Amino acid sequence: MGHNRGMDLRTPDPESDGGWLGEDDLALIRRRTPILYVEAIPVRVDAMGRVEHIGLLLRANDDGMIARSFVSGRVHYGETVRGALMRHLEKDLGAMAFPQLPAALVPFTIAEFSPMPMTQFHDDRQHAVALEFIVPVTGECEPRQDALEVTWVTPEEAKDPDLLDELEGGRGKILRAAIGHLLRW
Amino acid sequence: MGHNRGMDLRTPDPESDGGWLGEDDLALIRRRTPILYVEAIPVRVDAMGRVEHIGLLLRANDDGMIARSFVSGRVHYGETVRGALMRHLEKDLGAMAFPQLPAALVPFTIAEFSPMPMTQFHDDRQHAVALEFIVPVTGECEPRQDALEVTWVTPEEAKDPDLLDELEGGRGKILRAAIGHLLRW
Amino acid sequence: MGHNRGMDLRTPDPESDGGWLGEDDLALIRRRTPILYVEAIPVRVDAMGRVEHIGLLLRANDDGMIARSFVSGRVHYGETVRGALMRHLEKDLGAMAFPQLPAALVPFTIAEFSPMPMTQFHDDRQHAVALEFIVPVTGECEPRQDALEVTWVTPEEAKDPDLLDELEGGRGKILRAAIGHLLRW
Amino acid sequence: MGHNRGMDLRTPDPESDGGWLGEDDLALIRRRTPILYVEAIPVRVDAMGRVEHIGLLLRANDDGMIARSFVSGRVHYGETVRGALMRHLEKDLGAMAFPQLPAALVPFTIAEFSPMPMTQFHDDRQHAVALEFIVPVTGECEPRQDALEVTWVTPEEAKDPDLLDELEGGRGKILRAAIGHLLRW
Repeated sequence: MGHNRGMDLRTPDPESDGGWLGEDDLALIRRRTPILYVEAIPVRVDAMGRVEHIGLLLRANDDGMIARSFVSGRVHYGETVRGALMRHLEKDLGAMAFPQLPAALVPFTIAEFSPMPMTQFHDDRQHAVALEFIVPVTGECEPRQDALEVTWVTPEEAKDPDLLDELEGGRGKILRAAIGHLLRW
Repeated sequence: MGHNRGMDLRTPDPESDGGWLGEDDLALIRRRTPILYVEAIPVRVDAMGRVEHIGLLLRANDDGMIARSFVSGRVHYGETVRGALMRHLEKDLGAMAFPQLPAALVPFTIAEFSPMPMTQFHDDRQHAVALEFIVPVTGECEPRQDALEVTWVTPEEAKDPDLLDELEGGRGKILRAAIGHLLRW
Repeated sequence: MGHNRGMDLRTPDPESDGGWLGEDDLALIRRRTPILYVEAIPVRVDAMGRVEHIGLLLRANDDGMIARSFVSGRVHYGETVRGALMRHLEKDLGAMAFPQLPAALVPFTIAEFSPMPMTQFHDDRQHAVALEFIVPVTGECEPRQDALEVTWVTPEEAKDPDLLDELEGGRGKILRAAIGHLLRW
Repeated sequence: MGHNRGMDLRTPDPESDGGWLGEDDLALIRRRTPILYVEAIPVRVDAMGRVEHIGLLLRANDDGMIARSFVSGRVHYGETVRGALMRHLEKDLGAMAFPQLPAALVPFTIAEFSPMPMTQFHDDRQHAVALEFIVPVTGECEPRQDALEVTWVTPEEAKDPDLLDELEGGRGKILRAAIGHLLRW
């Protein structure tokens, strides 16, 4: 469960200075409070800003299963939402992806995950609330850590129900909403 | 307190059983992870949906100071964002306020609070990330609990810098953004 | 160039007095400039604001064909976007529908229609740009004028590809985007 | 009729090939129907996507007065909103500005201009409805045509009431809303 937290910050992490959020504390927190996540759907755009391709990560989840997903991760204590988004983009896509975060950091939607049937999306480990963003990347993506591969599909291909079903935790519905939001169906 | 609003839970409200999340655990969590909040700026609209008045709460904060603020509170473990928003509206404005939550629950902005200078907004107790909503109310507001009073001002009056300064934790900036968002200056 | 033209309209509807904007002028304008439209997808919500049903109009279009569509119409010269939206809601759904226009009049998307293949949506008559809104209605809908009927479907039913295909001008794609935006799939 | 995809910029303009919208027709149209505009507030962002500077154009308006304004212009018949936005950015800021249009082309607000008091914003010439965007530019801006100069100010400087008052047609209010939207006050 959540093996491999941080070690990836590069800058002084509020959690690494003795207040490290160990396995036990994280396990406790996950049973007691919703966890704030940021998630990004990477896209490649043309010179006019139109989405040409959508990137889907293939990654091993905590159960060792391979599944498609988004760039995704927790916001740390003492970290801004923008900082967390940038950190997870770099962690999953590599340092040369050059993501372009939006100037106004308003998510296009919010997704609620939990082990209980109360929400639309499923997460065995925790009740998580994710701020969902669509983020153009302009550089080279080299998946790192548990992200095995990035597959680029057109918006049209991304609507394939079989592909949508492969997305972890029900994220196919979020991807479908993103495609609608992009005005490219 | 917020008994049965949780119809969206279907399962026992984790916090309603005498303090499932006790003071100690909450204090621990507040030092270790960002806390997810929902906040609502209540408004009164005319028949065309145009905002006529904005409601500002006067409330005693944790330090016993009186300050102006928004409807505001934590999202509980096992509770939806929508459920939390409704619960806090009812808690602060009474059962007869009849708030009209938006069909699409996308916040108009997100505000980050912390005791550290890393964010724009200040909260001594915790690092909190608040989803900010503008919510029309159609009934009678009877402030309850620590909410002492609701003052209704016009959007024009709400732009008064002195009034904006009275808002707790820097929320004058959020209110100013809301007024811009409403297209009523 | 045409300064001060105003003395304003507001009340006497420019088009209701026998042809303020005559057929010829409208035909000319439609060949020369994009026409600004407002469109509304009416919804019924529960006490928590969650969408339970989506309303689809059945109407005769200009060619006498019966098709499903949204509440839709032009913004007149001298009319606000809010005023146009309210006027078309009343025209199509009757005076007792009691639509709740959003306090912040930002469309959830913009749709471009034309007879040419340059846009995603089709309109034989004109190049139109429509501001798209989702609008809760709380009263009784009595379709009027060329609106023959309102059919209420659940968000789940509305995802049926056959139903989406019945929508005029490609609006099935807009409805699909609306369902995504509502976070109800 | 659909012979021109690239109308959206620097290639065949639907209005320049004989279907030119002459002064007379434009004058007629401006008295009869709202005109669709796109407007862009250019910004410079840092590597994290945070706005560092906001660009204000100084330009001569139709009356020969010098005023501050946004990138602004009509959507042509047969032109997409995205194409119009790109064309006006290039026209006002030069070919080397390299604007980054958003992947999802939803305006942060809509502004209504007219010679009449019915709307918040003023335009002597016409009733115009403008889709308002915030657009990062990454290259060099060389104002062209009637744009004399681009002044870059910080979001903090842009809040100066005197500067806001200098903006044409009441656009100071739109800029103030944009600053709120950016979460940088």
